[in-house]
Amino acid sequence: MAVAELSPSYTKTTIHSSSSQLSSLLSTHLSNRRRLSPRSLSRTQNGRVFCSVVSNQVQAPVAVQSEEAKKKPECYGVFCLTYDLKAEDETKSWKKLINIAVSGAAGMISNHLLFKLASGEVFGPNQPIALKLLGSERSFQALEGVAMELEDSLFPLLREVIISIDPYDVFQDVDWALLIGAKPRGPGMERAGLLDLNGKIFADQLIMLILFHASALICLKNAPNIPAKNFHALTRLDENRAKCQLALAAGVFYDKVSNVTIWGNHSTTQVPDFLNARINGLPVKEVINDVKWLEKEFTEKVQKRGGVLIQKWGRSSAASTAVSIVDAIRSLVTPTPEGDWFSSGVYTNGNPYGIAEDLVFSMPCRSKGDGDYELVKDVIFDDYLLNRIRKSEAELLAEKRCVAHLTGEGIAVCDLPEDTMLPGEM
Amino acid sequence: MAVAELSPSYTKTTIHSSSSQLSSLLSTHLSNRRRLSPRSLSRTQNGRVFCSVVSNQVQAPVAVQSEEAKKKPECYGVFCLTYDLKAEDETKSWKKLINIAVSGAAGMISNHLLFKLASGEVFGPNQPIALKLLGSERSFQALEGVAMELEDSLFPLLREVIISIDPYDVFQDVDWALLIGAKPRGPGMERAGLLDLNGKIFADQLIMLILFHASALICLKNAPNIPAKNFHALTRLDENRAKCQLALAAGVFYDKVSNVTIWGNHSTTQVPDFLNARINGLPVKEVINDVKWLEKEFTEKVQKRGGVLIQKWGRSSAASTAVSIVDAIRSLVTPTPEGDWFSSGVYTNGNPYGIAEDLVFSMPCRSKGDGDYELVKDVIFDDYLLNRIRKSEAELLAEKRCVAHLTGEGIAVCDLPEDTMLPGEM
Repeated sequence: MAVAELSPSYTKTTIHSSSSQLSSLLSTHLSNRRRLSPRSLSRTQNGRVFCSVVSNQVQAPVAVQSEEAKKKPECYGVFCLTYDLKAEDETKSWKKLINIAVSGAAGMISNHLLFKLASGEVFGPNQPIALKLLGSERSFQALEGVAMELEDSLFPLLREVIISIDPYDVFQDVDWALLIGAKPRGPGMERAGLLDLNGKIFADQLIMLILFHASALICLKNAPNIPAKNFHALTRLDENRAKCQLALAAGVFYDKVSNVTIWGNHSTTQVPDFLNARINGLPVKEVINDVKWLEKEFTEKVQKRGGVLIQKWGRSSAASTAVSIVDAIRSLVTPTPEGDWFSSGVYTNGNPYGIAEDLVFSMPCRSKGDGDYELVKDVIFDDYLLNRIRKSEAELLAEKRCVAHLTGEGIAVCDLPEDTMLPGEM
Repeated sequence: MAVAELSPSYTKTTIHSSSSQLSSLLSTHLSNRRRLSPRSLSRTQNGRVFCSVVSNQVQAPVAVQSEEAKKKPECYGVFCLTYDLKAEDETKSWKKLINIAVSGAAGMISNHLLFKLASGEVFGPNQPIALKLLGSERSFQALEGVAMELEDSLFPLLREVIISIDPYDVFQDVDWALLIGAKPRGPGMERAGLLDLNGKIFADQLIMLILFHASALICLKNAPNIPAKNFHALTRLDENRAKCQLALAAGVFYDKVSNVTIWGNHSTTQVPDFLNARINGLPVKEVINDVKWLEKEFTEKVQKRGGVLIQKWGRSSAASTAVSIVDAIRSLVTPTPEGDWFSSGVYTNGNPYGIAEDLVFSMPCRSKGDGDYELVKDVIFDDYLLNRIRKSEAELLAEKRCVAHLTGEGIAVCDLPEDTMLPGEM
């Protein structure tokens, strides 16, 4: 077990500089290399999107008046033009424009996701949208290319596009923030672009989807004006993969599989729940009579799917990840079908399952389609399921201690027992 | 001017072998390197998708009984399962399944296009589809990766997926064939996978969209059971780019630009027509009073857009190309809005514009949404437009002579005066 306290150099370079330059992009490193194994270190350094390095519980945010902070966001090309939305309101039933911020916008997942958002596939055919795209200095040219391709696609619903490397430009007053992080990485590629944000720039009603659970917890803690319920860590790709594997095993089409929960962390400790899942409305165990397969192979297949895809495809799955993000958004803006639910990594404040409080943990949710959700109450547990959930809970508690300095809870103690990063996310 | 006759080695290796092994994948090379410049050669070798090297006008197709030809198509994973479509017919208003073949299916354009087809974005929310994906031996693992990501996406409308490297598996009895060709190429990447097909395997009502004009002409000539009107060479990305540039110049949103034609070839001789185009219903020249910009800069901007994107993005535009293919399909399956039209490279049989017959040439079309189209009659010409159209016509006539051996019109004479390949398509 490795225990790491923050080194003085970390405290100096990151916390101090960020309190005086809130708008700058900072890379947050745990620099105590002595006690952490290379993989654990690389994970903590590279595997997370950090919302803020400033704990708002202990330090009041400082107003920024630097030139950089005042720089106008860069609207792009044809999207800089004013368009007569009011006149159109009278002739068409456009809804009010929604603003969507996307980080990692020049990466492969975003390259699929942005075109889905712009086409109306996510929010529907009468919903104009504005895209606010965050890239890094290194990826800025590629980000311009993305904006050019969005121009050339003539999406009628896409009314504004801004591109920037300044999170303050991008995250101001948006309705949705999709923190996609950096590019998925193939062999030899580096994970780039940790993102620091101060919570105060976010709009109160913002809904934020974030790839990683610890990152979601950090964001949640650093943006106290946003309800904790509005933060989601993504486990939908895992849920979709679990549904597909259950369908394959049962010999049915995947639309017959329902009520699949991914419990816990988006990592190898994730728990695809076959106890509560249903196939053609029946408990899975009544359809697939192979407990050994369910307990061992099924779970492994779901967890290892990403790794198999990297081998086949030479890089992480981008298209299906984007589809799962679309699914996650849709699950919050359309009513959940009667009797079904979806998985999302959400805040465990008052959860009915006995899971430790104050975590971001994937659990079964239902939504009325208003952006909000409620936890599903009628789920059952057995020893196998509970033991597996406890393991993922222990991991998330350890991750939480590991980022304590970023959530305003004091000194980080990093005692993650082993590397449970999913293949393709190291 | 370079004149190239077919070398004996070409005749021997390709025409002879293909008449005895119709189902094999052959790469067709013009091997007379002596007389062709390196770029012209590379274009003829690599820039085209060949439908057949057998002229059906001079040789009857030979029935194939080899093991390879009888090999069952590989359905993929969950898509091998039978699903109860009949039962669903009773409860839902599913339409009859349509079969869509896609070549170059492991490439970047297809990686966007396939997920759009599967999501219902192209053919609508009640239209189940089957995807038949053609890859190369080299790309087969990536193709498996694509099929896995399609599985994981749980698209309710996607009912069958087969993957194969044998065009006979893929193109049998499909409703649509989308010949996307090989991967778009970044610096240092090769164009792979010329495709040979014998026309006889195609269903009579097939509609085929093909990236290049000469390839479309070859396909058309080698599949005499399919109406010539069913072949389309794609110029929709050029049209979309032209609309965007006109919108930018006029300071209006792109949805205000209509009636844009791309005339001629999908090459640097393409003619984006600003004479007939309209902005807010007015002739472009009444809105943009800068003839010099229209004649010079506008045309160049459209033609060079792909090259600029490659510089920004490090590779060809895939997302917006896929969007334009979706637009092209939709234009044939939904009625064209009153007073507007779209561009497509279609057969010039009896065209009202005086363009040489027996070419595939991009012209303005309207559709009732039944898959068919009619050419638009109320277009005007001036000397500038006519001269530019003549130049693209001359190029397509030269390209036609260059592939005469593939269209059953005797010996190829390759006298293409210069390389007019668009940036990103060499």
